[in-house]
Amino acid sequence: MGLLVQKFGGTSVGCIDRIEAVADKVAAHREKGDEIIVVLSAMSGETNRLTALAKSIVDYPEPREMDVLLATGEQVTIALLCIALRKRGIGSRSFTGAQAQIVTTDAHTKARIRSINEGPILSELGKGNVAVVAGFQGVDELENITTLGRGGSDTTAVALAAAVKADECQIYTDVKGVYTTDPRMVKDARLLDSITFEEMLELASLGAKVLQIRAVEFAGKHRVPVRVLSSFEEGNGTLISFEMEKKMEDPKITGIAFEGDEAKLTVSGVPDVPGVAHRVIGPVSGAGIEVDVIVQNAAADGSNDITFTVKRGESERAKQILLDQQEVIQARNIDLDKEIGKVSVVGVGMRSHAGIASKMFEAIANEGINIQLITTSEIKISIVIEEKYLELAVRTLHDAFGLGDPN
Amino acid sequence: MGLLVQKFGGTSVGCIDRIEAVADKVAAHREKGDEIIVVLSAMSGETNRLTALAKSIVDYPEPREMDVLLATGEQVTIALLCIALRKRGIGSRSFTGAQAQIVTTDAHTKARIRSINEGPILSELGKGNVAVVAGFQGVDELENITTLGRGGSDTTAVALAAAVKADECQIYTDVKGVYTTDPRMVKDARLLDSITFEEMLELASLGAKVLQIRAVEFAGKHRVPVRVLSSFEEGNGTLISFEMEKKMEDPKITGIAFEGDEAKLTVSGVPDVPGVAHRVIGPVSGAGIEVDVIVQNAAADGSNDITFTVKRGESERAKQILLDQQEVIQARNIDLDKEIGKVSVVGVGMRSHAGIASKMFEAIANEGINIQLITTSEIKISIVIEEKYLELAVRTLHDAFGLGDPN
Repeated sequence: MGLLVQKFGGTSVGCIDRIEAVADKVAAHREKGDEIIVVLSAMSGETNRLTALAKSIVDYPEPREMDVLLATGEQVTIALLCIALRKRGIGSRSFTGAQAQIVTTDAHTKARIRSINEGPILSELGKGNVAVVAGFQGVDELENITTLGRGGSDTTAVALAAAVKADECQIYTDVKGVYTTDPRMVKDARLLDSITFEEMLELASLGAKVLQIRAVEFAGKHRVPVRVLSSFEEGNGTLISFEMEKKMEDPKITGIAFEGDEAKLTVSGVPDVPGVAHRVIGPVSGAGIEVDVIVQNAAADGSNDITFTVKRGESERAKQILLDQQEVIQARNIDLDKEIGKVSVVGVGMRSHAGIASKMFEAIANEGINIQLITTSEIKISIVIEEKYLELAVRTLHDAFGLGDPN
Repeated sequence: MGLLVQKFGGTSVGCIDRIEAVADKVAAHREKGDEIIVVLSAMSGETNRLTALAKSIVDYPEPREMDVLLATGEQVTIALLCIALRKRGIGSRSFTGAQAQIVTTDAHTKARIRSINEGPILSELGKGNVAVVAGFQGVDELENITTLGRGGSDTTAVALAAAVKADECQIYTDVKGVYTTDPRMVKDARLLDSITFEEMLELASLGAKVLQIRAVEFAGKHRVPVRVLSSFEEGNGTLISFEMEKKMEDPKITGIAFEGDEAKLTVSGVPDVPGVAHRVIGPVSGAGIEVDVIVQNAAADGSNDITFTVKRGESERAKQILLDQQEVIQARNIDLDKEIGKVSVVGVGMRSHAGIASKMFEAIANEGINIQLITTSEIKISIVIEEKYLELAVRTLHDAFGLGDPN
């Protein structure tokens, strides 16, 4: 028995049958005596449908009105779930972002939550009702409707959990939780009982996209216990925990993340002077292209190679930007390799265990895979390799670190 | 140049092309220097789609949540129109019912407007922008979302026009205005330049359903000039005016209304005592069945016949209710005739011209049509006839009163 925030994503409310299934799940928790705040996304496909409507008028629709438009998606699902709960004899009440008093910045389509007045929702729980809140949306201080950007419902859920001091924030999704790596690629990938916030951040940003990264940051900052679990299958999912200390003593790697949709740009022969990295990367990220790995290597001859990766779909545009700037940045060559992938081993434990890196490189070398780039952080080591070896590398590392399911 | 409220219904915003056409129309008025408040319905079909979603969960969805659900329909169209206006370089801002501060009663799905704070909208007009307001919706005093019932967008438009003291409330629809009768039935039906509120009430309630009756009442009460016109074709439409005096001197009939979807119930041989009409009609209207014409005729033998009409689809249910009550009401017979239609001549002018009724009856008799019931009011005379003669009767009366287009 406790105070729970339960968030259901778009596929979990994708049709009436699924909304009824969510109602069943909420009803079961309610019967156990839990107090429940539900946070919902729009039905899967709805946000795309609405966006397409707007874009059929103009390529860049006005952001304020996009938010008015998109916010209808969650307003539909909260109403439908309340209707389904009432059918089961469970009192409930829907809250739009405005009604839940979720106040955000005025940065339309990518607003950030500033404050939540937990009063109206707690008052509804006090009456024995379930509060059903529209995720992804809020209002700015002038009561303009705002949205938090794709995946923002996770952030709504975590922020609400923090505001009401919930015992747990449960993120229901279409996977059973967080795995040691993608179970579609590695058959014996193991479901993790728990994971630290830091590890989750690395895994989320590296490809295990079960939870929006901003939500994870928010949860870590406000120390909200988050559990990721399946809305379709039974199970306890994965708890995202604060228990760093215990994990620190454990040398084991938590998981293998990977990203296959990347391309690598190498800008070679640039002068080895201050500011050169900024002159190379600045125009690219200034054009809205997200830059992932960046590696710089000064050569003995006073010249310099800067290599970075971007999403494959944006790589030609990034290359053109660099070519336009070639004289300014004094680059000898600009090369694009569109056939690369990235693999990372992630684990809080690696901080105190230097052997992790060499074990990783050895396992990769044994398979005859050439490592093109290496970057490291406190809790992860990433390598960039030829894309055709991506799957082999993931399997090899999953085995090498003994992550597989013992069964 | 003036302050206009322009309301566009569901078919006028039924797809992106039509929304663009509405934007063109608003832009043209804006260029002439008009200040404009636009009121929109949901895209045609959307309200039905949303209702079907809710009803696939449960037959009688909770009204509060139905309103949350249905209100999304207009929220979509106001956002899309603002995006289309911005494309044309016209500043605009959308207002949900809550943002426009349209405060209603708390009768969910059929709320009535209590007040509108015209401040935010006028302030937007003051900035040179177009205000685009969601029709059909408001909030109660606790900020719960409410809706005004089907066709409620007309009421929103008229109420807004009254609140801001607009020069005209223009209701754009899929017909060119109000005709002397249905042009689909009578080829030379003539478009009326103007009509009085009273005539409009009779024509609206009798079948010329261009404007929601509650909106007409509201406009009459607050003396808002309303113009009905086509959103697809050019033209000045029909102005609903207050000029009773001038019309009173004009013996001409304004139009012929008719209703073909009716059935007649006759309760015969009931005692001629006080309260008998109530005992007959009470249980029927108590079951939510709308009763139209009611005629009572006391016979010399102290018995009584009460005849009334209802929508055909509800006639069997009405009959069963009467049969269940037969002993209580002491009726000798209960007869149902499902093949009837109603034709009415409407015109303020008839008040002072007794010849109208006899002219009507003569024209009908000349065609060999038997009149089953007659009812009269200050500005209309209705007859009930066999349904197969409905079209003939409408044409005959349209000719007899010289309503046809002279061209």
